[in-house]
Amino acid sequence: MPPVEPLHGPISMFSQSGNVSTQILLWGRDEGVGFEKFVNSGNEGDLTSEDYLRYFARDKASRIILAYIEGVDPGSALLPIAKEITRKKPVIVFKGGRTNAGRGAASSHSGAMAGSLRIYRSVFRQAGMIEVYSTQEMIDYAKALAAYPIPHGNGVGILTRGGGWGVITADCCEENGLAVPSLPENLSKRLDQILPRYWSRGNPVDMVAGIYPEPFMTCLEILANWEDIDVVIALGGGAGRGMLNSSRRKKVLELLRATEESLFKMEEAMVERQKEVLSFARQLMEECGKPIISVTLGSTDSRRDNMEFCQLLSYPTPERAVKALAAMWNYKRIRDGL
Amino acid sequence: MPPVEPLHGPISMFSQSGNVSTQILLWGRDEGVGFEKFVNSGNEGDLTSEDYLRYFARDKASRIILAYIEGVDPGSALLPIAKEITRKKPVIVFKGGRTNAGRGAASSHSGAMAGSLRIYRSVFRQAGMIEVYSTQEMIDYAKALAAYPIPHGNGVGILTRGGGWGVITADCCEENGLAVPSLPENLSKRLDQILPRYWSRGNPVDMVAGIYPEPFMTCLEILANWEDIDVVIALGGGAGRGMLNSSRRKKVLELLRATEESLFKMEEAMVERQKEVLSFARQLMEECGKPIISVTLGSTDSRRDNMEFCQLLSYPTPERAVKALAAMWNYKRIRDGL
Repeated sequence: MPPVEPLHGPISMFSQSGNVSTQILLWGRDEGVGFEKFVNSGNEGDLTSEDYLRYFARDKASRIILAYIEGVDPGSALLPIAKEITRKKPVIVFKGGRTNAGRGAASSHSGAMAGSLRIYRSVFRQAGMIEVYSTQEMIDYAKALAAYPIPHGNGVGILTRGGGWGVITADCCEENGLAVPSLPENLSKRLDQILPRYWSRGNPVDMVAGIYPEPFMTCLEILANWEDIDVVIALGGGAGRGMLNSSRRKKVLELLRATEESLFKMEEAMVERQKEVLSFARQLMEECGKPIISVTLGSTDSRRDNMEFCQLLSYPTPERAVKALAAMWNYKRIRDGL
Repeated sequence: MPPVEPLHGPISMFSQSGNVSTQILLWGRDEGVGFEKFVNSGNEGDLTSEDYLRYFARDKASRIILAYIEGVDPGSALLPIAKEITRKKPVIVFKGGRTNAGRGAASSHSGAMAGSLRIYRSVFRQAGMIEVYSTQEMIDYAKALAAYPIPHGNGVGILTRGGGWGVITADCCEENGLAVPSLPENLSKRLDQILPRYWSRGNPVDMVAGIYPEPFMTCLEILANWEDIDVVIALGGGAGRGMLNSSRRKKVLELLRATEESLFKMEEAMVERQKEVLSFARQLMEECGKPIISVTLGSTDSRRDNMEFCQLLSYPTPERAVKALAAMWNYKRIRDGL
């Protein structure tokens, strides 16, 4: 197996596949989230998933539990153990061997009797475990729970530079049980003063391709302090270095009739502005206690900048951000017994 | 908007959002797929989505059509136009304004009357358009249709270096309407000769952490020539440079007690082997006419190597590969009127 140096953080994981969990440690590194403890439980000849779950429950440094399970003993204590834990810390579970094809593969892999999916799902639900349906969601959800405060409600404020992305994000919120409250008159009037006359006048707040940092920060602040809103999603917040990366650099030089030197200065200035915006968002999140989720729309450069400048983690697409947020909202209700 | 230099390729796109489509062009660049023509149709005061669809249908160079639609005229000819096209080329559509929140945002964005989702979905289905449910799927599906031959059937052969990933991929195949046929005795016997004694003896073919190129290529060849199989998914095929990237370099030097020079040589050798494996896979795909889909399990380095060495495109996770494959299989049935 390739050498892995995971980041240190609040997630602990047990897994019935060493290969899957090693990869998750690597993905965590790419996404900026770290691990506290990690066990590959193999074919569980002696200690089992239930033992590790019980141990992580008592371990204060383990704040989020992640599990890859192919099969547990039908007479196992998974349900009562998990039921007690999930009131205190989130347990995210990914079940391998959900289908005939998967069960066949699992029996020759971990030797697990993968059993009836209906029974597993019923146990997960009753125990308040958060089931994920793809490997990517394992790290996406764990990241959200590690990096942001748990939202108090399900109201989402959306800030976007382009109308289409606002539409897509609003759709995804509603489809995942989140609300997109209408913007009240008084906030709309305040935004009138800083946005172009033809702005959307609603939530999503569409900045109509505005790229200057000041209005962006003011919008962010207005949304974060709006009482109907529990989370702010900021779309395309990261212009910065990504705009001038090597593949586009030549074109930018041509278009702007710029020299390498002037472009370098421009880039430096952009990075400075970017740092300013991200630090502002980070501070705002701490002050208002609401998650502010940055969606970079896919730019790896921006995502790296976000982490480097101020540990503000981000998602590449609105769908991934919204689903992670829905998982947090789901956990909030599990924790509070709602 | 940031300057975009898309790659050239077989995809043509019309979109009711300039911001969304510009981003898709950038994602295409990152994923190695290119565009032929591209229109942002705005609020469609004159020419409409239907006009562009009709035009792309007649345009030979446009082999795959991608659409972002918020709303079309209720009396529009979308259905009859699309119905004729989809027998000849795939049309992938993403619908914005599916929910109340999204419809509200769409009305202030493109001015579109987003209308009843049930009616849109019925039109898409009757016309044989492939609807996607996330922005990532737009590029994932278009990429599959651009880069691989259309599969003749839905049988998938899975080659993996780690058991858990095989289980996960098999589950995902079955959940998305693909089959994972059982490995026949004669092929199992052939594989006995090159794999460790404790190998899985089934499909997925689990190489049990084997990392040498020769058995990997032999397994690939055996799977590709197996007549019950229409597609091969190769998991974790790309070790190569990713293993020695900067963040892990120091650790590797320590662990192996190697010098920078010897590590450089090792890296060169790994890259050479990697090129060999990828070129072999590429050639095999051309010979057998079946898609061979590489899943790199998230390593950006490996994905870049795949493209650079032999234009063999890859997916970062098995779920994204399988869903793109299911879209190809779906299109095959639409095209053949099944």
